[in-house]
Amino acid sequence: MTVDPAEHFAGAREMLRRDRLSAALGMVVVRDEPGEAVVSMVVREDMTNGFGITHGGIVFALADTAFAMACNDDDAVTVSAGADITYLASTTPGQTLMATARRRSRSGRTGVFDVTVTDETGAVVAEFRGRSLTTRRVAGG
Amino acid sequence: MTVDPAEHFAGAREMLRRDRLSAALGMVVVRDEPGEAVVSMVVREDMTNGFGITHGGIVFALADTAFAMACNDDDAVTVSAGADITYLASTTPGQTLMATARRRSRSGRTGVFDVTVTDETGAVVAEFRGRSLTTRRVAGG
Amino acid sequence: MTVDPAEHFAGAREMLRRDRLSAALGMVVVRDEPGEAVVSMVVREDMTNGFGITHGGIVFALADTAFAMACNDDDAVTVSAGADITYLASTTPGQTLMATARRRSRSGRTGVFDVTVTDETGAVVAEFRGRSLTTRRVAGG
Amino acid sequence: MTVDPAEHFAGAREMLRRDRLSAALGMVVVRDEPGEAVVSMVVREDMTNGFGITHGGIVFALADTAFAMACNDDDAVTVSAGADITYLASTTPGQTLMATARRRSRSGRTGVFDVTVTDETGAVVAEFRGRSLTTRRVAGG
Repeated sequence: MTVDPAEHFAGAREMLRRDRLSAALGMVVVRDEPGEAVVSMVVREDMTNGFGITHGGIVFALADTAFAMACNDDDAVTVSAGADITYLASTTPGQTLMATARRRSRSGRTGVFDVTVTDETGAVVAEFRGRSLTTRRVAGG
Repeated sequence: MTVDPAEHFAGAREMLRRDRLSAALGMVVVRDEPGEAVVSMVVREDMTNGFGITHGGIVFALADTAFAMACNDDDAVTVSAGADITYLASTTPGQTLMATARRRSRSGRTGVFDVTVTDETGAVVAEFRGRSLTTRRVAGG
Repeated sequence: MTVDPAEHFAGAREMLRRDRLSAALGMVVVRDEPGEAVVSMVVREDMTNGFGITHGGIVFALADTAFAMACNDDDAVTVSAGADITYLASTTPGQTLMATARRRSRSGRTGVFDVTVTDETGAVVAEFRGRSLTTRRVAGG
Repeated sequence: MTVDPAEHFAGAREMLRRDRLSAALGMVVVRDEPGEAVVSMVVREDMTNGFGITHGGIVFALADTAFAMACNDDDAVTVSAGADITYLASTTPGQTLMATARRRSRSGRTGVFDVTVTDETGAVVAEFRGRSLTTRRVAGG
């Protein structure tokens, strides 16, 4: 992912900066705050399914990455226990997708996060809901 | 995706053969029958998240691809309306993931498919449930 | 359900007023606006599971009722295609649950609604996400 | 719930026998084995929604009860962390619903269970997937 080098991130957030898949897919971090994150990506030709539209796995991966950033806001390692996605519109190569993740609730080690994926016109492409689990591990440096 | 050229596929199934993301991720179709499909993939270094484990979006993309094959078994175009995934174990680069998709129920234009993702030891990595919607479009040649 | 007789409701909303289960469970409509609804209920002894806490099916039924009200805001009959619920805290008889439903997205005949269930202290008990489907039927008077 | 008094159940299973909601709704345990349970119920007039069909919360409560029985097969208390339901057909009062729950996967303290709800003709009414969490509590007597 492309980030402003002047920004400082600690713990788990720092680790997420080394996300290899996000870099390979060209994701860019637009906003990164405690409990909230925005990540965008331009759909490429090699991200389509057999019907020529953006593969559902790509839309999910973008939302999942924003979710991972939003739920890792301290030194504890928080992982995804699972997620649900509902597709509302299809997109094609050349379009820009933006995933906005926000914490909705937290109770003990469990969290619920909502991620809305929109296209460049602001139309909703998918609604994602992630379930987070905070582990007892602490992110190393 | 790599497939046996001697096999014949019609309609929507044929279209899925042109899935660009699956090819880019190195997915291989192991089985492809009406209502059932098996797809495998070796996890690469560029498929990891910031914690160095397989990105949840990759596990989802593999399951979603098997689901798409299983639900497109005639000329009608069937798409994913949404899906839920629960992660049960993490994996790392070099491991082989296998997604087995089976139709569970169908009613009108709606279908429910279960996809189990396992690693090379047979251990369950994730359980995915997809909701399909059969459109009125017919797959072109 | 108990409602203010001076209020006017048309179409599908009116039909929901005849919800037999809601009446049997003692649900009360607190707010009822297009795309938003609030329904509350006091947990009774006959609503518990074997562990003596509120049965998950009761929490779901309350959220589902608020969802049904929020998604039926004109003459078209809108039904639930499905829903996901995550439990965050348990409750016991005597406590008051409140379900607040809001439309999140809509595209064509599909809608996504979020329902948060809280207890009398405002603590979140469960997060529910409903998927609505607007049918071609029109609610009869 | 109505059960054969000659049967023996230990721990958490025993506690489920005291499920007050199941009794109030007239649920009957048809089968109860480790990792599998079948529960049935006749839909009553007071279980309908405003459209005169079985309330989604009732279908969910039946599935959830079968899930609770299937996931509590030893002394440890196992609870529902959440669930997803997809509705495939509607039913009306007088029909008999049957929920069949089976364990699909388990990893550590997390389990995934599938519950299929059918009507008296065997037609699928809903597909439910439950996520279980085994707590550190032990069921008392």
